[in-house]
Amino acid sequence: MTAAAGGPMRVVIVGAGFGGLEAARALAGAPVQLTILDRQNHHLFQPLLYQVATAALSPGDIAWPVRTIFRRQQNVTVLMAEVTGVDVAARIVHADGVAFPYDILVLATGATHSYFGRDDWARFAPGLKTIEDARAIRRHLLLAFERAEMASDEVERQRLLTFVVVGGGPTGVELAGAMAELARQALKREFRRVDPRRARIVLIEAGPRLLATFPEELSDYAAASLGRMGVEVRTQARVTECDAAGVSIGDERIDASTTVWAAGVVASQAGEWVGAERDRAGRVVVGPDMSLPGRPEIFVVGDLVTMKDRNGKPVPGNAPAAKQMGRYVGRVIAARARKAAAPAPFAYRHHGDLATIGRRSAAVDMGGFRLKGLLGWWFWGIAHVYYLIGFRSRVVVSFEWLWSYLTFQRGARLITRSASAPTPEERRADATPAAGG
Amino acid sequence: MTAAAGGPMRVVIVGAGFGGLEAARALAGAPVQLTILDRQNHHLFQPLLYQVATAALSPGDIAWPVRTIFRRQQNVTVLMAEVTGVDVAARIVHADGVAFPYDILVLATGATHSYFGRDDWARFAPGLKTIEDARAIRRHLLLAFERAEMASDEVERQRLLTFVVVGGGPTGVELAGAMAELARQALKREFRRVDPRRARIVLIEAGPRLLATFPEELSDYAAASLGRMGVEVRTQARVTECDAAGVSIGDERIDASTTVWAAGVVASQAGEWVGAERDRAGRVVVGPDMSLPGRPEIFVVGDLVTMKDRNGKPVPGNAPAAKQMGRYVGRVIAARARKAAAPAPFAYRHHGDLATIGRRSAAVDMGGFRLKGLLGWWFWGIAHVYYLIGFRSRVVVSFEWLWSYLTFQRGARLITRSASAPTPEERRADATPAAGG
Repeated sequence: MTAAAGGPMRVVIVGAGFGGLEAARALAGAPVQLTILDRQNHHLFQPLLYQVATAALSPGDIAWPVRTIFRRQQNVTVLMAEVTGVDVAARIVHADGVAFPYDILVLATGATHSYFGRDDWARFAPGLKTIEDARAIRRHLLLAFERAEMASDEVERQRLLTFVVVGGGPTGVELAGAMAELARQALKREFRRVDPRRARIVLIEAGPRLLATFPEELSDYAAASLGRMGVEVRTQARVTECDAAGVSIGDERIDASTTVWAAGVVASQAGEWVGAERDRAGRVVVGPDMSLPGRPEIFVVGDLVTMKDRNGKPVPGNAPAAKQMGRYVGRVIAARARKAAAPAPFAYRHHGDLATIGRRSAAVDMGGFRLKGLLGWWFWGIAHVYYLIGFRSRVVVSFEWLWSYLTFQRGARLITRSASAPTPEERRADATPAAGG
Repeated sequence: MTAAAGGPMRVVIVGAGFGGLEAARALAGAPVQLTILDRQNHHLFQPLLYQVATAALSPGDIAWPVRTIFRRQQNVTVLMAEVTGVDVAARIVHADGVAFPYDILVLATGATHSYFGRDDWARFAPGLKTIEDARAIRRHLLLAFERAEMASDEVERQRLLTFVVVGGGPTGVELAGAMAELARQALKREFRRVDPRRARIVLIEAGPRLLATFPEELSDYAAASLGRMGVEVRTQARVTECDAAGVSIGDERIDASTTVWAAGVVASQAGEWVGAERDRAGRVVVGPDMSLPGRPEIFVVGDLVTMKDRNGKPVPGNAPAAKQMGRYVGRVIAARARKAAAPAPFAYRHHGDLATIGRRSAAVDMGGFRLKGLLGWWFWGIAHVYYLIGFRSRVVVSFEWLWSYLTFQRGARLITRSASAPTPEERRADATPAAGG
């Protein structure tokens, strides 16, 4: 990482999500010296993370070491390190006590869920952004059924079997659907004292409808499908309190063992590091070439960015948008490194929205082209397998899905201690031991 | 769990390892009311755990929910609960604050590695008994390579790339071989600053040879094979010190980032619960029908037991022996429940020993029948796939092995925070940040 005057342009990419990965790939063969920094060793296929949380897939099926992805791209060095700050004037990134000088910096550190000023709720209602999150939620969910089988008190048993998902976007819808299938199908004949089909699953959305960015027809379809699966859909409901024993919606109390948070957006800190202009969610305002105004050597991509498309609609914070931005920025940098003309300003192309609801049920909106039900579900499945990385994951995920489809079972129903802190359920259990049986 | 005078015989099995599982299966259809208690929700196929620790398999591939295994056996209730003690006089098992009365008790809680009185070494040199252990070791191993790529100091880099395995039994041999393959094959082209093939792997055995229970010919073969793979095999070497920065063998110091403990045996506490006679390793002495002398209602199976076979050789603490004992005890209990004649005393049948060393290399001893090399490796692979539970795991494990064989890659190279405590490597890293780059 020594500064080489006249040597190849040094490009540092922070974050190996969809945006960072595509930027680096677009620089294959370009005369640059690329360093990718990420605090994890793996790229995660977040759109399927809810399937890890509900025991359908293993973490290894949807995550790949970043350095394996770039093993053949010789201008890339991958380092697992956590960035702590950027010295914009000196053009240096600080990560784990090491200084990385850059000529070009790409920030692709993403966003997470927002608790709307109630960050203390995070311990009771984890989000779903990392493998650790997914494993903690899986542990939590499965443990609730185990505790219910041990419990002797009927009220406690019903509380244990109540699960709340906050946020009716694609993640919330997919999670609630998968939880319903877990309870009603995968677990059904395995308990002797409780009937897992009695589990109560509540999906809470503050807005007037689920899947707000989809056409209304598909929102209605999603709500109806979830209803048939036994999910209580609550729209125009706002969580006003959240603790270890459940949530409140105004005066209404829902006692629950497990609450998962899939609402709101708050950007990661990267905007602060470089002193960029940000919106209320911390997302960075960028120029037409995705660089910071007045800082042409700093680019920002993915859901860390706030921007509008040509129709004045906000660009969504999803994987396809992040990939388009990453690819575009890679091309801008490659042009600069080759002293070629800069590409035209970035223009987001909206290909569509997809959300699966459950077995044989999905909502697909690709512009004029809409699909529901079985056909949508097939489309969703094929699209997701296609976007996985590598032959191995495609085979394993396809097989796991086929097997689950045929047997109604789940392949990764493990309760392991994955989080460093005890779950709220565990904290409660420590305080109130189960009564005699 | 109410005592029903005249109702079916209440059998409580503690532990869902190989022994407990077989006992419960042998009681299918018997007029008993079975309760299986385990502190985990899953049965683990321990013989392949080293492949999880070395990133070849995912935890979900070799572990299955106990209640799924028994979903169709209606006389079984499975509960996830940690046993804290047994009231032998009142015939009650206490688990998580709940009392479980029994007519028959089967203890199958297994054994773990022994640190020979130095239990303080456990934090520096984890054993390999649970999924959490395997994931912690995997994290540790992979993190060492990542840290080496970040390190600027050559001495520190070499320390990071030094891995020690203590114990030359099958687990130690398999682990050392798998580590060598990980470093020399799976990772080889993925780093830019270090060459993972320079990793030093040291296998330390206190006795005169590896695989002490195998014929000498196979021990020699294993040592030679490991040597060719670049593993330093050190026999008649005893670890005298162990800390976060490595191990000592007498005056010789080996600085290492990762030490894994695969030596010694110490039984779990269950012998104490029932006040049984135990050997120095805490293993329980049982009568000819595997029950406690003077306590015909308490049976003990698996590596919690110390016993000799007909030739006066100790029965090994492995999966086949545990399964034979479990099956036998199940038959004894079924006979009692049906008031039939008791089976003849338990006789252990030794089928053989297997250990894989690496790619196309394994040692197999089946009585007169011995195999090495490619043939032994195939035999080992087929035997292990055969003993996995269910179609799904057989397909997934077979595919993962085929894929690894063809590509030299590993499917589950994830660094995630799986342990509640930081690893020794992390503790060190916190104390001494990496120097500038």
